[in-house]
Amino acid sequence: MTDAPTEILHATHRALCEHGYAELTMQDIADETDLSKASIHYHYDCKHDLLLAFLDHLYERFEARIADPEGATPEAKLRSLVDSIVTRQSDAPAFQTALLEIKAQSPYDDAFRERLRRFDDTFAAAVRTIVEEGIEDGSFRDDVDPDKVASFLTTFVNGVQTRHVGAGHPVEESTAALDAYIDEMVCCESDPGDDSDASNTGQTDSGGAAE
Amino acid sequence: MTDAPTEILHATHRALCEHGYAELTMQDIADETDLSKASIHYHYDCKHDLLLAFLDHLYERFEARIADPEGATPEAKLRSLVDSIVTRQSDAPAFQTALLEIKAQSPYDDAFRERLRRFDDTFAAAVRTIVEEGIEDGSFRDDVDPDKVASFLTTFVNGVQTRHVGAGHPVEESTAALDAYIDEMVCCESDPGDDSDASNTGQTDSGGAAE
Repeated sequence: MTDAPTEILHATHRALCEHGYAELTMQDIADETDLSKASIHYHYDCKHDLLLAFLDHLYERFEARIADPEGATPEAKLRSLVDSIVTRQSDAPAFQTALLEIKAQSPYDDAFRERLRRFDDTFAAAVRTIVEEGIEDGSFRDDVDPDKVASFLTTFVNGVQTRHVGAGHPVEESTAALDAYIDEMVCCESDPGDDSDASNTGQTDSGGAAE
Repeated sequence: MTDAPTEILHATHRALCEHGYAELTMQDIADETDLSKASIHYHYDCKHDLLLAFLDHLYERFEARIADPEGATPEAKLRSLVDSIVTRQSDAPAFQTALLEIKAQSPYDDAFRERLRRFDDTFAAAVRTIVEEGIEDGSFRDDVDPDKVASFLTTFVNGVQTRHVGAGHPVEESTAALDAYIDEMVCCESDPGDDSDASNTGQTDSGGAAE
């Protein structure tokens, strides 16, 4: 059996999916548990405290999830890292919507903002590590800047969420555009070819112009 | 003197910046005008109707703003188009926050969603047109897919907004990452060089590996 605080955090997840953030009440959360509203208040003073604890809990899971991306090569790891974030958008639309609501509150709330920033920072750091690995083992272009790729992809995955929630944009289209970016910007040519020279290092020609 | 509906739309802009979307009342909007709440209701039935008219008004301005990006070349046009969207994030943070709130409401509201999608579609179409122009005049790589670049940049500018509002991420960093993307993914080498052959078309080496 889970302890009460953990049960409350799981209930918060379900209640956010059902009611969104703005309308969420402590009673809505209590309704998702066998506990009374009073016993929820015993563990968390107010909705704000509970939401902060919920973001911390979410962050711990996020950190664990992205810590060791699947894949035998840096390229495979980079794709599975990004995919694991992007596909979550379509898997859990109601929850992603609630998260976007929370993001829209963050300018009014430093504690929210600080917690939200950790997700981006941790994702960017994971990208950076993989890109450095790929440069090191020669599978990624040696002229890419790991920080810029990390920043770019972090912004991009934020955009996937916003477009999906805000305009119903299909996640698959974002994934296809992203694959092209990784092919072109990050990976070395899969076939080093006969003409390889220094100036040619790492450029992939996925469009077939070389044929 | 502006007519009452236009005055109300301008007042809605100011009220959104001050109060955000969730908390906004018709009275807040009336307080930004010389009109009574009753006369606002005379023009717009309810907050929802007023917000839809406001999004239409915003869209008209957006469409006019991005219709003819400054610049003598497709590359200059593409950069100024994207810049004009990105720098708006830091110019008007309160308003961008309200827009993100509205985006987070859109899954519950088809009329919102349809209007929000038009912004993305119009921006994507503008990118696509410029990329096609650049391929046509030979300044852009002929192996880029205008649709993919359009989709990618549209998602990216959404991400710039979300990261800026949600995590206080500096817009300048996004701009730098974006410039690298345009250099590498879209533009032909500025110096066609001595070694140019078909497989080399369009790759920029901004990292200096060729030296």
